[in-house]
Amino acid sequence: MAGFQLLLVAGTHGNEINHTFFLDQWIKHPYLLNNSKINVVKEIGNPLALKASKRYIDRDLNRSFNPELIDSLCISEYEVKRAKELILQYGLKGKDECQIAIDLHTTTANMGSSLVIYGRRPTDLALASLMQARLGLPIYLHECDSSQTGFLVESWPCGLVIEIGPVAQSLIDLSIIEKNRIILEVCFQEINKVRSNDQLYPDKVIIYRHLGSIDFPDPKDNKDKISYSIHPDFMNKNWNTIDNNSQIFLALNGKTINFSREDFSENIDDKLAPVFINEASYREKKIAMSITKREVWNFQDSWGESISKLIKD
Amino acid sequence: MAGFQLLLVAGTHGNEINHTFFLDQWIKHPYLLNNSKINVVKEIGNPLALKASKRYIDRDLNRSFNPELIDSLCISEYEVKRAKELILQYGLKGKDECQIAIDLHTTTANMGSSLVIYGRRPTDLALASLMQARLGLPIYLHECDSSQTGFLVESWPCGLVIEIGPVAQSLIDLSIIEKNRIILEVCFQEINKVRSNDQLYPDKVIIYRHLGSIDFPDPKDNKDKISYSIHPDFMNKNWNTIDNNSQIFLALNGKTINFSREDFSENIDDKLAPVFINEASYREKKIAMSITKREVWNFQDSWGESISKLIKD
Repeated sequence: MAGFQLLLVAGTHGNEINHTFFLDQWIKHPYLLNNSKINVVKEIGNPLALKASKRYIDRDLNRSFNPELIDSLCISEYEVKRAKELILQYGLKGKDECQIAIDLHTTTANMGSSLVIYGRRPTDLALASLMQARLGLPIYLHECDSSQTGFLVESWPCGLVIEIGPVAQSLIDLSIIEKNRIILEVCFQEINKVRSNDQLYPDKVIIYRHLGSIDFPDPKDNKDKISYSIHPDFMNKNWNTIDNNSQIFLALNGKTINFSREDFSENIDDKLAPVFINEASYREKKIAMSITKREVWNFQDSWGESISKLIKD
Repeated sequence: MAGFQLLLVAGTHGNEINHTFFLDQWIKHPYLLNNSKINVVKEIGNPLALKASKRYIDRDLNRSFNPELIDSLCISEYEVKRAKELILQYGLKGKDECQIAIDLHTTTANMGSSLVIYGRRPTDLALASLMQARLGLPIYLHECDSSQTGFLVESWPCGLVIEIGPVAQSLIDLSIIEKNRIILEVCFQEINKVRSNDQLYPDKVIIYRHLGSIDFPDPKDNKDKISYSIHPDFMNKNWNTIDNNSQIFLALNGKTINFSREDFSENIDDKLAPVFINEASYREKKIAMSITKREVWNFQDSWGESISKLIKD
């Protein structure tokens, strides 16, 4: 066993090129980022899609880490093969085992920098809490969504996505890269502190918990048969509290469609907030935005214990 | 002969979807845009690329209108076939002849709305002058660039590109669509005025004349072998006067590469301005930005006469 290692993946989506650009430069010039003495294994998630400047070749790699896909006897899709390859190489009991996976993404949505975790794994919550305490990053907890499964980091015992926007696909923006560099350095510092038992957990952590998604209205369902898009006034409202009847879609004839709170929550005190408003690649997934509930959780000691157990020498 | 007709093309690049969305809605709901009684023929430039969410299938359609390509005996590339098809249908002496072509584009560069004309055709200068007088749009005159030829509108006796940004590829942004709608309405109004001899030409027109392009520095040419990208402080400086030694590229190690005026002009009084800074699809064309010279031209009566001759009843 190689001891503690962290798997850092860029280019899981082949048209999110800022992080692959950075990874390439970091490999050539190690001084560009301080790894806090952590052994970081650097991988391009989807090299074929990167070459083709596409999100994926056959299917979304970051929806391909489902055990039922990977354990299938007959794998034909490139991304499922690639997912299996990464797990066999770097997964638990893999040839070059890593305990934590960090997956780097960008979005066209104007949502700044955030962390995404999948399900309520104590290890992820511990790491995300440490990073939020340092940088104030919002944490998007994706859970209970049967239509979106098989995320890369779920195949490792601890892992999260660093998501940075807005940036167009296939476009290098150094300010995006610099934000990611700072977040990664803090991430490595905090992991290093956990390993030497110097970490300082916050009392509270703010979680944006996924409740569901809203698709663009289907013109076939509308009497006036006109297509709606995101309302320009709503475009940049990621993470903001959304009120009942907020205008979220606008058609070219001026008609609007409003947000209906009761589709997501019956509790009037719940603070609901949209994320991933108008992410270009989510149109095919039938997601115009996702709706979260802002919650303040007490930090649980068991979270800290679980990550310490995983990565301490 | 069908009389005066205008060819309006959206989706010449298949990943610039705002204008195709608008065209589709306008066909279904004619009240969305006032055509000023002009007969507007609406076409999707590159339907296959639009379906594939790509700029093009085999080659850039908006670099495929070269006579030597189209007149070739053996055409294999889809876009050259499509260019020929459009010319045979709507070109001079085509089945459904149009005298003016307007080609709708978007850019990832933060350059707002502008007009692009190719060469110094009097008809284009007349129409662009009328639109600039109404809306203040900058006019980018592309000329003397042997590496970029075969633009769609050059195959019609009058034509220009309406270019709107910034917007990511494959992303609908209604504020982009609304800007285009307003520009098109003004365009049609001005053409209608020319046809009824009610036009009012300005005395002066401001032209940003193409001088050349700058590619991203090649790391192989650099001693430190580090890759440069657009300097974040420079990213939004389209149309602004650029001084000698302005920082235009930045590497992750903090090193910069500066603008060298003398590569473009020896006259210290020339006002040079960059355009298309970091347009995502120009990376493959080896263009990080283009450099223009801001010039104020006197309006020439001959321009007005030429467009009147072309389109008056």
